[in-house]
Amino acid sequence: MSDSVMKRLEADREGILARLYAFVRHPSVGADPAYADGMRGAQDFLLGRLQAIGLGNVQCLDAGGQPAIYGEWLDAPDKPTFLIYGHYDVQPPDPSEKWVTPPFEPTIRNDRIYARGISDDKAPSLIALETLGAFLREEGRLPVNVKVMLEGEEETGSATLGALCRRYADLLAADAVISADGARWRADLPTVIVASRGNAGFEFTVTTACKDLHSGRYGGAVPNALHVIAELIASFRTPEGGIAVEGFFDGVEPLLDHERSALTHIPFDEKQFYLQLQTAPSGEQRYTTLERLWLRPTLEVNGLWGGYTGAGSKTVIPNEAHAKITMRLVPGQDPERVVEVVKTHLLRNSPDGATIAFGETRGGSRAYLLPTDHPLLAAAEQALTETLGTAPIQVRMGATLPMTDIMARELGIQTVMFSFATSDEDYHAPNEFFRLSSLEEGLTAWVKLLRKVGEQSPTDYRQQ
Amino acid sequence: MSDSVMKRLEADREGILARLYAFVRHPSVGADPAYADGMRGAQDFLLGRLQAIGLGNVQCLDAGGQPAIYGEWLDAPDKPTFLIYGHYDVQPPDPSEKWVTPPFEPTIRNDRIYARGISDDKAPSLIALETLGAFLREEGRLPVNVKVMLEGEEETGSATLGALCRRYADLLAADAVISADGARWRADLPTVIVASRGNAGFEFTVTTACKDLHSGRYGGAVPNALHVIAELIASFRTPEGGIAVEGFFDGVEPLLDHERSALTHIPFDEKQFYLQLQTAPSGEQRYTTLERLWLRPTLEVNGLWGGYTGAGSKTVIPNEAHAKITMRLVPGQDPERVVEVVKTHLLRNSPDGATIAFGETRGGSRAYLLPTDHPLLAAAEQALTETLGTAPIQVRMGATLPMTDIMARELGIQTVMFSFATSDEDYHAPNEFFRLSSLEEGLTAWVKLLRKVGEQSPTDYRQQ
Repeated sequence: MSDSVMKRLEADREGILARLYAFVRHPSVGADPAYADGMRGAQDFLLGRLQAIGLGNVQCLDAGGQPAIYGEWLDAPDKPTFLIYGHYDVQPPDPSEKWVTPPFEPTIRNDRIYARGISDDKAPSLIALETLGAFLREEGRLPVNVKVMLEGEEETGSATLGALCRRYADLLAADAVISADGARWRADLPTVIVASRGNAGFEFTVTTACKDLHSGRYGGAVPNALHVIAELIASFRTPEGGIAVEGFFDGVEPLLDHERSALTHIPFDEKQFYLQLQTAPSGEQRYTTLERLWLRPTLEVNGLWGGYTGAGSKTVIPNEAHAKITMRLVPGQDPERVVEVVKTHLLRNSPDGATIAFGETRGGSRAYLLPTDHPLLAAAEQALTETLGTAPIQVRMGATLPMTDIMARELGIQTVMFSFATSDEDYHAPNEFFRLSSLEEGLTAWVKLLRKVGEQSPTDYRQQ
Repeated sequence: MSDSVMKRLEADREGILARLYAFVRHPSVGADPAYADGMRGAQDFLLGRLQAIGLGNVQCLDAGGQPAIYGEWLDAPDKPTFLIYGHYDVQPPDPSEKWVTPPFEPTIRNDRIYARGISDDKAPSLIALETLGAFLREEGRLPVNVKVMLEGEEETGSATLGALCRRYADLLAADAVISADGARWRADLPTVIVASRGNAGFEFTVTTACKDLHSGRYGGAVPNALHVIAELIASFRTPEGGIAVEGFFDGVEPLLDHERSALTHIPFDEKQFYLQLQTAPSGEQRYTTLERLWLRPTLEVNGLWGGYTGAGSKTVIPNEAHAKITMRLVPGQDPERVVEVVKTHLLRNSPDGATIAFGETRGGSRAYLLPTDHPLLAAAEQALTETLGTAPIQVRMGATLPMTDIMARELGIQTVMFSFATSDEDYHAPNEFFRLSSLEEGLTAWVKLLRKVGEQSPTDYRQQ
């Protein structure tokens, strides 16, 4: 390894780990106001880091929600400009009691660091910052112009990212986005992601009476909010595992033969996949598992609650029940329209005596598809090939990065995902972790990527 | 009012209210170990009261669960002996935030006392004790022999009451039970209850994978525990509102013409019933509301939870979901068998990739039907007629008093419900209350009842 920037990064492993730990110890759960201090702590940490590594114009970008943290280095006038994206907000740690070690106290076991947010997206984001810092300290400059933006609302659906892009459109103008978010598909297979599903979601409440009622005194005569909500959720699915909501598939094109065929060439051990998860296939039976994961939309209940949930029993007919729903969308689906058809389905299927109230709509991103001839994709594939010793396979992703859709719509630029998280790292579940080996791979690949794009010209991008 | 015992009770209203408040302030929630101090407080209060009013042999009866509190007065050798039943445990106060005033701080508004447990069953139980106390102080004796037993497990299904009756069979031997529990049907219609439904219940957990999974990375390919539990709950019901569980109705006789006809003579404003509850009819459409409430069994989910239930959203496919179930049973149904057929239904309808685990079975009482020629029923009807100025109508009750079934099986004696609670008093919901007017009625009616049964002979009962 003759690259001096890489050598500097190699020599600074302890410092990098210490900074990563400090970042992760801020419990920056954006979904829950109880964690407001953690959000502020992570923001302050990043403002300090961006200044320390030598970026300028460091500031909070505010569009009414959690601010994004911004910094820039723009002293390469004949080079392309990249918006480097990451996020500092994390998923809630619930269920907290299932963590082996405390969620906000990073702990190494078996060459993995365990902590909430370590994989999604604090380690991948910090890898980008550390690489920029090493370049600036070692060489006094970067190979390209860089604008760093670290979002604070990724885990809550990027509610104000669109407004933020509009408000700061000039500040954020760039040739393409390099995203430190968007985890790699598998630990055993080098891949690069060229598409992702969109999303949308909302919460609803079923009310069946003016109050909870005694199950003996009223049982048999009145509706039970828990039965009503269960029947509504059951009505979302066909007996064959498909989605039964009228209008849900409007705009979705039938899968093309070449799309289906491409998936059959991807190494994927379906049996092992289900064995590891200790479950069995579910969903639309006429599609393969990879088709269901990448090319078909979903409708999932993420939370469901009502009635007595404490110790022992309480013989009550609950009058209220609640559910949180999210959907994953494919090209052709409009998030707002999908939310509307699901709400209409709920209202239509609600029985006499029950009323439905809808909470705020969350998310709302279209699916994303990267043009396969994009120059940043080519540079990323080369950097990964050199880092990992083998060429990555182009794959799709079932998850959503709302920013891909927002950046394309608001700033007119494409995103390449260059995260070093891996999708098995339990990042929306207890015991989230990040592989120490991915830290090595990430730092190496980021150095290589910045050098590759440093050989490109802005005109390569303006032809896009 | 020439009855000197009544006069004494009348003069002591403030003392009675003060003792009722002291009783209610003990948060005796038996379902939740967090309230252990409240249970002990209520037990100590009752031990003190039974001694203070002049009962002997005061003690805790223990069969491994929450103890029952016992006291006796047996100095009327030629008179019948009655077991006076009540209970001191109460429902959990959840959802606590819906209480207008704190659940364990009794508060009078609009001639009603609001507090958890005031109606079920602390005021009705205390009315019985105060009446006994007034007789003993005023006349130095009671009109009949009395054994008082106040249970501590009524709200949790009377799990050890059967064992307790077996262990203390000699101590508890009596001619009949007068129950201070078993609320009156309506505030506007004098009634006496001659039947009640049985009950049974259990909790179950659905598991669909080894851990929570990300809804983007896995959505479409794997089962979701919340969808599985929703579909299982939906499968309990037929499209017509009946119960679809195979074997559930085994042993249930078709309704007899005279049973159906009797119900049509009971004044019941169905429209007003649903209007007040702000809901609509639900359940088996080929039965009337009263038939569904009194003569048909039910299956209700009392609690349902899983996934993310905090603020905001979490895009998770939950791997675990939980439900609490109770059933109300009619004559012919065996509680153990009904629990088994519902469990079998769940196992049969569980999809691939899901497993079901069952928690402890709770409750388990058969339905109860009082012989209409019972001498205690006649005495109760007379006492109520004199107190209220109009003869009570015989009605059934949809709720369960496990003790009615347990006393019949273990001690071989029948129970007459002589509670002065009313079924609209929200006793399993927030803002439980008890009417101050019911305190008057109850004290008067208990004096009259004790004088009536004092005119009866033990042989009246032994012919039963």
